[in-house]
Amino acid sequence: MPRFKLTVEYAGTRYSGWQIQTNARTIQGELARAVEAATGRDRFELYGSGRTDAGVHALGQVAHLDIATTLPPAALRDRVNHELPTDIVLIDVEKASHRFHARHDAVARRYLYQIARRRLAFGKPLVWWVRDPLDLGVMRRVAARLQGFHDFRSFTDDEAGEKSTTVELTRCDVVEAGSLVLIGVEGSHFLWKLVRRLVGVLVAAGRGELAPDAVEAFLTQPSDLPARLTAPASGLFLERVFYPGDQRDVPLLPVLNF
Amino acid sequence: MPRFKLTVEYAGTRYSGWQIQTNARTIQGELARAVEAATGRDRFELYGSGRTDAGVHALGQVAHLDIATTLPPAALRDRVNHELPTDIVLIDVEKASHRFHARHDAVARRYLYQIARRRLAFGKPLVWWVRDPLDLGVMRRVAARLQGFHDFRSFTDDEAGEKSTTVELTRCDVVEAGSLVLIGVEGSHFLWKLVRRLVGVLVAAGRGELAPDAVEAFLTQPSDLPARLTAPASGLFLERVFYPGDQRDVPLLPVLNF
Repeated sequence: MPRFKLTVEYAGTRYSGWQIQTNARTIQGELARAVEAATGRDRFELYGSGRTDAGVHALGQVAHLDIATTLPPAALRDRVNHELPTDIVLIDVEKASHRFHARHDAVARRYLYQIARRRLAFGKPLVWWVRDPLDLGVMRRVAARLQGFHDFRSFTDDEAGEKSTTVELTRCDVVEAGSLVLIGVEGSHFLWKLVRRLVGVLVAAGRGELAPDAVEAFLTQPSDLPARLTAPASGLFLERVFYPGDQRDVPLLPVLNF
Repeated sequence: MPRFKLTVEYAGTRYSGWQIQTNARTIQGELARAVEAATGRDRFELYGSGRTDAGVHALGQVAHLDIATTLPPAALRDRVNHELPTDIVLIDVEKASHRFHARHDAVARRYLYQIARRRLAFGKPLVWWVRDPLDLGVMRRVAARLQGFHDFRSFTDDEAGEKSTTVELTRCDVVEAGSLVLIGVEGSHFLWKLVRRLVGVLVAAGRGELAPDAVEAFLTQPSDLPARLTAPASGLFLERVFYPGDQRDVPLLPVLNF
């Protein structure tokens, strides 16, 4: 059966996350429904690079789709888009090798988090508006300390026994873009809620509520403070999933120009 | 009574335009309600630089407000913002001279129109998605012909008798920005629906459905074709209102980075 690589953009606001569920509207569920309507086939496999939580967006989620169709990729893309709601878009469909696997082959994921430093009339579903002044210098110092191999168990609800909570963050950048502050986080894989807790901790440090040393202590002594600081889903975007051979040095851009 | 100059950003999607109405939700109506709630005063005058239609957005609408308050401008801004819905924001409040008038003193207005060349998951309320290929070279040639002093009576529903339909468009630019095409239109004043009809005509020319000479004919022989080509409100932003002394040479930027 032919395999296709799908690149998907979605506004997560109206959805209960990526993963298909029986009684909730999800991205994977909408995609599966659209693929069925577009091809008339109900036997196919759709596999994402990873889940995103309720309310989280994607600029470039990747999935693979096994389906018995003779449609060329561009026609498949257009037909599925025609069946999708307007806040989910297939931006690219390519033929993929039978050995390509959206999750196993991903070598890195990059997330973008958008913080707004003022109220934005167009921003509510796409940013976290932080009213208090933020010290970006402090945020950058804390981000630099979080970069690298660490045990992020205080930053996740993943069960410690099930999989390792040690993760390498290859990038953790704090970038100013107009009225926005962008946080870009890159790693080979992520833990559940890691990015939102990391952003919450960076913002607490930027507000002066948390000393950089206290943040470093979260990496050695478990704490439930990062959980209480979890940043809202609205500002988070799965920005890009990298596969072997992909260009990695891509600049981090805001979704909104304000 | 002190006079304030207000700069207002709004997402027009949920509103029946700027102008206050008895039985519809409007931007001016929401602002008036918020000013009353924020100051406890119900006697004030709120005067906009001009109207915007239902569904049209603003990045920098300007209004003046006469109100008996001793609040400093920043406190007035914060209190009114606190009372406003999230899709309307006062981005600036300054003390103004008693002689300042938001409408009469405006020397130019600039509109931005966003066309999307692909489906955008985040774009529906903020762009016009045009599926067909657009020849930007043709659009630029047509835009150049529309620039200058012309009788735009075919581009408006304003009654010919009431006011002159001759208007000077000082700028009409077609700019590529990623997957978007931006149309920037500047003039000292505008006619009702002028920008949306102008965009509709430019897109018809860009699609190859309308010859540049036919567009030029609209300026000398009245036609109802521009009315039938009216572009949707969703892509239109009142971008900026210029007053004497304002810097004019400001680059045209997209609202969305795609």
